[in-house]
Amino acid sequence: MSTMPILVVGSVALDSVETPFGTAKAVLGGSANFFAAAASLFGRIRMVGVVGDDYPMDRLDFLVERGVDLAGVERKSGESFFWEGRYDYDLNTRETISTRLGVFADFQPHIPEAFRDAELVFLGNIDPGLQHEVLDQVTSPRLVACDTMNYWIEGRREELLRLLPRVDVLMVNDAELRQLAGEPNLLHGARWVQDRGPDYVVVKKGEHGAILYAPDWIFFAPGYPLEEVFDPTGAGDSFAGGFMGYLSGSDELSREELRRAMIYGSAAGSYAVESFSVDRFRTLTPLEMAHRVEEFREMTFFEHELGVHARG
Amino acid sequence: MSTMPILVVGSVALDSVETPFGTAKAVLGGSANFFAAAASLFGRIRMVGVVGDDYPMDRLDFLVERGVDLAGVERKSGESFFWEGRYDYDLNTRETISTRLGVFADFQPHIPEAFRDAELVFLGNIDPGLQHEVLDQVTSPRLVACDTMNYWIEGRREELLRLLPRVDVLMVNDAELRQLAGEPNLLHGARWVQDRGPDYVVVKKGEHGAILYAPDWIFFAPGYPLEEVFDPTGAGDSFAGGFMGYLSGSDELSREELRRAMIYGSAAGSYAVESFSVDRFRTLTPLEMAHRVEEFREMTFFEHELGVHARG
Repeated sequence: MSTMPILVVGSVALDSVETPFGTAKAVLGGSANFFAAAASLFGRIRMVGVVGDDYPMDRLDFLVERGVDLAGVERKSGESFFWEGRYDYDLNTRETISTRLGVFADFQPHIPEAFRDAELVFLGNIDPGLQHEVLDQVTSPRLVACDTMNYWIEGRREELLRLLPRVDVLMVNDAELRQLAGEPNLLHGARWVQDRGPDYVVVKKGEHGAILYAPDWIFFAPGYPLEEVFDPTGAGDSFAGGFMGYLSGSDELSREELRRAMIYGSAAGSYAVESFSVDRFRTLTPLEMAHRVEEFREMTFFEHELGVHARG
Repeated sequence: MSTMPILVVGSVALDSVETPFGTAKAVLGGSANFFAAAASLFGRIRMVGVVGDDYPMDRLDFLVERGVDLAGVERKSGESFFWEGRYDYDLNTRETISTRLGVFADFQPHIPEAFRDAELVFLGNIDPGLQHEVLDQVTSPRLVACDTMNYWIEGRREELLRLLPRVDVLMVNDAELRQLAGEPNLLHGARWVQDRGPDYVVVKKGEHGAILYAPDWIFFAPGYPLEEVFDPTGAGDSFAGGFMGYLSGSDELSREELRRAMIYGSAAGSYAVESFSVDRFRTLTPLEMAHRVEEFREMTFFEHELGVHARG
């Protein structure tokens, strides 16, 4: 099957993470890495980012072997983006211990010529001004998905609002949607966003799953019930990777395909949190993920016929 | 269709509620009222509780018209159970302004002779010692469901643990399950409960829906995406009412029926929060609810075939 190439622009970082289950030092992190690790199970990924001359590029070999094209990952003199954080015992609260932007502070996304005809584009969580610059460089994307965060919603609000008309799928968490729309009700928040451009709003709710708000339908993907959540870092970007990766094999971006993509996204997010960093994706196969998608179907499917089951 | 009679034991209260959308003074409240309002759409309800001589019994006429038998609601000299609370603007935090137990403080559930052969039993959130006394009086229930709260989990833990072997379905919210099991992971928490008796654990998560943990399968019911959550009071008891009410029409308590019951529960919870008190249930019809259940199916259904959709 031919697949639509996917362009991802985001951070290529090193993370040090402490969870109740252990500690990982200077492991692969950043939105582009998590996205590519998940999406490359299905699609052809073109990655754009920046790293310092300290970055262990050889650790990305498993992505290259899966066909991820790193030609857009610029190597600059200086330190790589480094994030250090800690999760407390219920894994719901995250404390950032330190962030060093390094060369990422001056990131100017340059999309290689050969990347510009990508049909699917994922704008990882970076300055909305840079997200604009990415879209200025691509020729004719069929679907643009975009992540953002509280920092940009507060500090770069106008730039972000100007970006929305160029976005097809806004992917945010529930707190971000509430902040962006100034509206506690998620349904109203989604409609607020849709009025400003994107046809689709995906709201990621961690263990509670994710919701896709389309113009005239809504779809719920539950969170996969995990025995152990080992490290929540990267779940959202992996969700995006599963979602876009699945779609890259679609003939058309139909309602049915988008619904399945939500489940593939939720499955990808569940794998991300089973190990530190992108580690679980090193050995994961598309068939394993498809089996987990079958489990999601088992957990949500029910039959109902008005004439048979309406009682009273 | 014949239905299995349902016994509900719980509080029959008066609530004063303040939300960002308005104020309601001394309206019908309490677990037994919300449960009965929802369950009576489908089933024959037998209610046991206690009220003071100040209680406006005529306001329960709409339940009586739907076949709710109030013969077990004892009328005692004194004040009725009264609760006053306030919700802030995002409706997620609730502040109790005052609680006056009144005659409920000395509640001794007496199950009328004619109620004792009820096939379905719902033990509303009362002292686990009283929940035991209810079960001592029923003859041969096919399914016992039980609610509880942090107050009993802390203060009456041993009594509650002794109750679990007599319960088929424990219905709690996520915080209560975590507290009861001493375990942040819901899946582990559910298994912990199942090891102590109940085959089924229903975890209610408010706007995030509900999860049914069965011995060897799991089912997710999303929360219905409401335009307006008017008053969250009673959502959990209405969920239980929708769940048990639906089951009361079942020929067998099969996996398929339990899954549909979860969706009827979630639908009932969504109606509860659309108005103050039990008001939405006054006009609601079984057919309306069945149509909302159809909407749930629209929001969760997806097709997936390993051979067709597994990609990569």
